[in-house]
Amino acid sequence: MSATVRSSVSFERLVELRLAVEAFHCDYADVLDRGDIEAWPDFFTDDGVYRVIARDNAEANMPLCLMLCEGKGMLKDRAYAIAHTEMYAPRYVQHQISLTRITGVDGAQIKAEANYAVFETLIDEPTRILQVGRYRDTFRLVNDRLLLADRLCVFDTVVVPNCVVFPV
Amino acid sequence: MSATVRSSVSFERLVELRLAVEAFHCDYADVLDRGDIEAWPDFFTDDGVYRVIARDNAEANMPLCLMLCEGKGMLKDRAYAIAHTEMYAPRYVQHQISLTRITGVDGAQIKAEANYAVFETLIDEPTRILQVGRYRDTFRLVNDRLLLADRLCVFDTVVVPNCVVFPV
Amino acid sequence: MSATVRSSVSFERLVELRLAVEAFHCDYADVLDRGDIEAWPDFFTDDGVYRVIARDNAEANMPLCLMLCEGKGMLKDRAYAIAHTEMYAPRYVQHQISLTRITGVDGAQIKAEANYAVFETLIDEPTRILQVGRYRDTFRLVNDRLLLADRLCVFDTVVVPNCVVFPV
Repeated sequence: MSATVRSSVSFERLVELRLAVEAFHCDYADVLDRGDIEAWPDFFTDDGVYRVIARDNAEANMPLCLMLCEGKGMLKDRAYAIAHTEMYAPRYVQHQISLTRITGVDGAQIKAEANYAVFETLIDEPTRILQVGRYRDTFRLVNDRLLLADRLCVFDTVVVPNCVVFPV
Repeated sequence: MSATVRSSVSFERLVELRLAVEAFHCDYADVLDRGDIEAWPDFFTDDGVYRVIARDNAEANMPLCLMLCEGKGMLKDRAYAIAHTEMYAPRYVQHQISLTRITGVDGAQIKAEANYAVFETLIDEPTRILQVGRYRDTFRLVNDRLLLADRLCVFDTVVVPNCVVFPV
Repeated sequence: MSATVRSSVSFERLVELRLAVEAFHCDYADVLDRGDIEAWPDFFTDDGVYRVIARDNAEANMPLCLMLCEGKGMLKDRAYAIAHTEMYAPRYVQHQISLTRITGVDGAQIKAEANYAVFETLIDEPTRILQVGRYRDTFRLVNDRLLLADRLCVFDTVVVPNCVVFPV
């Protein structure tokens, strides 16, 4: 957490928010790891934005994303497509998410970051690293529930192993 | 944590339990990562059950496990065999465990889940992913100490890289 | 946490320290993952020691380290060399750090351990495991801020994949 955040919010409040965001990550990863892709859009606000972008693009301020969904309509469309129309080999994904930290608090809006590693397992193949990266999140508290107003997934794994089927 | 759990247990209590379960994971992983296999059965109740099962078997409700120990006697027997009678190439294992969440509380019984990744290093080989999976645990509070009444390890890594020597 | 620690420090205090150490890990990993290597020495006390040692050496009490910096002068020298004089292929690193636990508290000095996995991505190559290991840390509270008096990184990954450019 930055010095700025530290000065305006108490350590206790930051810890409380961090624990809440970590609980969010649990729920989010669980839905994706179980393959329940159609429950995934419910983690976002109605105007929620989801982007998966290569780190070199992000650092060069280039806008091209591997995935981009603006608003719940696009999120639901994406989820429906993955569940019902896209063709891909069956696979399991598993998330490790650690190092969650709160980087900003502004009323009901919370900014946070965390490192993620997604492991992918295709039938008859060893588990491999699909992608490692960093979530740069903006959460909004809606009816006491954290929702993503913006999730930017900045990934190091510039060489995509074949394809990224599911959101990370 | 599910809506059901949320309604019956306070957020503070869930956080407290989560922190306690995370401390348990630390101790458990430390024992295995140090290779102190004969201390491993002490994490279980006398009637504790330990199973390692492939995810496709678990999801199809098929019972075949990669490892199965029912009760402390079998756990100790397994640990003794690994420490003293089995032959295998020397290796290090290391655990990453994240995304711990409490999924149920019923008196002294606590249900929890977490994602694990186990990395294995053989002499003169690069570190590889041995197994990624999910702990589905039932803990029991015995004399203020958490013990495993049931640990089900559901793994994604269906193709076992040669063999799984140690419990995960 | 060991039984000794438990008896002398309250569970609440241990949790508080663990959350603080976890926050430290976040800041530390963020600096390295962003490649801001010259900010890295600021995580140490003036007499801080940093060592990266293979697990077989550590367990045999052999002193040879892959990296060794004694005092802030050497830490800064190392950081400067990496930033300005060494030649290496561009790369991203990413940390996963989990299973943090407090192993000792003695006034302003805190001993802690955690498992780390560092993933490395070279341009045009898939992400690979650079190193998995365990931090064995001694922190000192200086002006309410945790600083490393000693970080020993004991790594399992005895076969170094080409080279380890950055500290872990």
